[in-house]
Amino acid sequence: MTRRCFKIKNIKVICTKCGKSYLADILQDRCDDCNEPLEVEMVKKGGIREGNLLKQNMLERYADFFPYFNTINDVSLREGFSPLLESEKLANEIGLGKLYLKNESSNPTWSFKDRGTVTGVLHAIKIGYKKIATVSSGNMAASVAAYGAKSGLKTYVFVSSQIPIEKINPIAIYNPTLVTVEGRYDLIQRQSLRLSNKYGIYMLNSDATFRVEGYKSLAFEICEQTNFDVPDYVLVPNSSGGHIRGIEKGFREFKECGLIKKVPKMVCVQAAGCSPVYNAFIAGADKVERIDKPNTLAHGIENALPLSGNQVLRMLKWNNGLCVSVTDEEIINAQATLAGTGLLLQPESAATLAAVKKLKKEKYFRGDEKVLCVLTGSGLKYTAAFERHELEQYTCKLDEMDSLLGSLQ
Amino acid sequence: MTRRCFKIKNIKVICTKCGKSYLADILQDRCDDCNEPLEVEMVKKGGIREGNLLKQNMLERYADFFPYFNTINDVSLREGFSPLLESEKLANEIGLGKLYLKNESSNPTWSFKDRGTVTGVLHAIKIGYKKIATVSSGNMAASVAAYGAKSGLKTYVFVSSQIPIEKINPIAIYNPTLVTVEGRYDLIQRQSLRLSNKYGIYMLNSDATFRVEGYKSLAFEICEQTNFDVPDYVLVPNSSGGHIRGIEKGFREFKECGLIKKVPKMVCVQAAGCSPVYNAFIAGADKVERIDKPNTLAHGIENALPLSGNQVLRMLKWNNGLCVSVTDEEIINAQATLAGTGLLLQPESAATLAAVKKLKKEKYFRGDEKVLCVLTGSGLKYTAAFERHELEQYTCKLDEMDSLLGSLQ
Repeated sequence: MTRRCFKIKNIKVICTKCGKSYLADILQDRCDDCNEPLEVEMVKKGGIREGNLLKQNMLERYADFFPYFNTINDVSLREGFSPLLESEKLANEIGLGKLYLKNESSNPTWSFKDRGTVTGVLHAIKIGYKKIATVSSGNMAASVAAYGAKSGLKTYVFVSSQIPIEKINPIAIYNPTLVTVEGRYDLIQRQSLRLSNKYGIYMLNSDATFRVEGYKSLAFEICEQTNFDVPDYVLVPNSSGGHIRGIEKGFREFKECGLIKKVPKMVCVQAAGCSPVYNAFIAGADKVERIDKPNTLAHGIENALPLSGNQVLRMLKWNNGLCVSVTDEEIINAQATLAGTGLLLQPESAATLAAVKKLKKEKYFRGDEKVLCVLTGSGLKYTAAFERHELEQYTCKLDEMDSLLGSLQ
Repeated sequence: MTRRCFKIKNIKVICTKCGKSYLADILQDRCDDCNEPLEVEMVKKGGIREGNLLKQNMLERYADFFPYFNTINDVSLREGFSPLLESEKLANEIGLGKLYLKNESSNPTWSFKDRGTVTGVLHAIKIGYKKIATVSSGNMAASVAAYGAKSGLKTYVFVSSQIPIEKINPIAIYNPTLVTVEGRYDLIQRQSLRLSNKYGIYMLNSDATFRVEGYKSLAFEICEQTNFDVPDYVLVPNSSGGHIRGIEKGFREFKECGLIKKVPKMVCVQAAGCSPVYNAFIAGADKVERIDKPNTLAHGIENALPLSGNQVLRMLKWNNGLCVSVTDEEIINAQATLAGTGLLLQPESAATLAAVKKLKKEKYFRGDEKVLCVLTGSGLKYTAAFERHELEQYTCKLDEMDSLLGSLQ
């Protein structure tokens, strides 16, 4: 098969709102006119490059759907190719046709972010940047720090001074230039965006155009893993909105190329304590409004004003998708349910299963649906959540083991 | 290709010392005569079942080399298929032909243990057990708890009362019957072994015969990932010795089947603060002796009297392998080196890279060797190690960001 090798200068990035187009060989994440996020133009022809996944990279397997980057091996940590499990047990318990669990915690920094970080960093290098940055204290910070280390780029990570040292260390270990800033989070974000322009730093935000593009690969894998008989619903925990946008685009491109028959309905999952997209969705609004006092234990989706919020609303409209919000209690319950099937995930990942339960309980799901939860990151990342669980244990002395075990049979 | 379907009753397990054989359809981990570990008989004919890894399980791909288990989907969390990275940067810095990094932290519970837990649990079910157990407070406990949850078996995890709550929670979340026992670790181990016999519990120890058998798949993947041109040396951090035994057996079976030309030299890596195998190896002894006061931060290999220690010594002899011990300081340095390439691993994983550096420094390696480090588990598992690193960070106010960034360019 011939490699199609999209060259970066032949690719356009397009405003998701007004359709104005820009060239992909410069850094441009938002429309000059609308200030809405941009998107790489759709791929309308392509297929899968068969090969041994143990030796392949996701960008090689789905090469028809990505620009050609000659530095893949300098940047990739072999992200993607995550397991898809089907839980008959949970499908039966909840009452569903099928329940799929896509476990993204197998990625190199144990979250979905790596799929987008690799394409973002590759784009940065391709268009000549030697420095990258991000503002985050969670999965994205660790991911950008790791890929910055791998690729040898100067890497800046900005975090708010309010976060505890236990969240700092797993970022600092990759040895980025870590800057703790006193100030409100959104102000740090705005300031760092301005300064990265000034100092020639490629800012790898959570809905950066080429980050979102990387998330497509998750949809491609789901297609392969379900033998191209895709689920009816795909649930994604929503922070900035970049993740769900990328996944939906992936399905849309595979449909355009005739690889699948339909695009699943996308379900944007938010936490009740911080649900700007949900609020707008329910109100039928076309713009998200800032949440004043966000408050959820699912910090990965505690985003008061999602950068891609408006675009998620537009996407849900054409996709016939929906938006669900779940409480922290429902999230903790779902986290326990997942652990009961052998999967330890972050609270925001569990939010998707909580939403599935809710949709069934509220009779939105009839019971024969095929549903997929995108489980975004490892439960080891946020150990404070454990304290919300009632975890049982027995204690005994060495010579009491026999009688204790006897009583437990 | 016809599925060969080894039936469990047709398989023998053989004493690694005296060669006495037993049937595999009962639970038998040690020789009645020698008290040495048993090993599943060698597979001498077989190949790889090609297929799409996104839909395949490691036991399906390498079906010729494993017994047939009809409950795979009830037990597997889709372990294995971990990335192999090649670091040209580190190979150049250290002075080696090639340096491969096999990253086992992508597994379902983020360590290599899952490869052995899945085969152990499958064997337990196959021979009629409904209960499983382990004694561990680390990777193995989490892995057995997760697979116990997945497979719906009653699962007991015994831990020593000395371990902190932060190590307990990520095990307890899977909801096993968790028993904290006051007493010395090896005494708890001995007592639980006796009691699991009494109560009909399948004890999934660290060198259990069918656990070790599962580790073969790591060798098989390395063969595929290196295009069957295997490394000269494979370094494995050593605790009980089950892991390195399984990997070596995997290479040996592939060689027997004509899939590779040679078996790599195995390098057993220990921490200087607890190196019973190293001590015996250097002394030319054929038995390991208990370490009185083990003391290393690499707790995963802090094993005072490895259950498979004597067998590792026998194996290293026929394999022409070697044993290396590294200090905690060397381990921490190597952990930083790995993080500098984008990989955050446990201290015991980093011990392998520390050993590579040492072997080069001491001129055991000439400089053209192809070397592979088995990186056993995620660095998120042991956060206390971060405190041993000098991690830099800058602090500033919002309005100082500009001048700080300016000074850092």
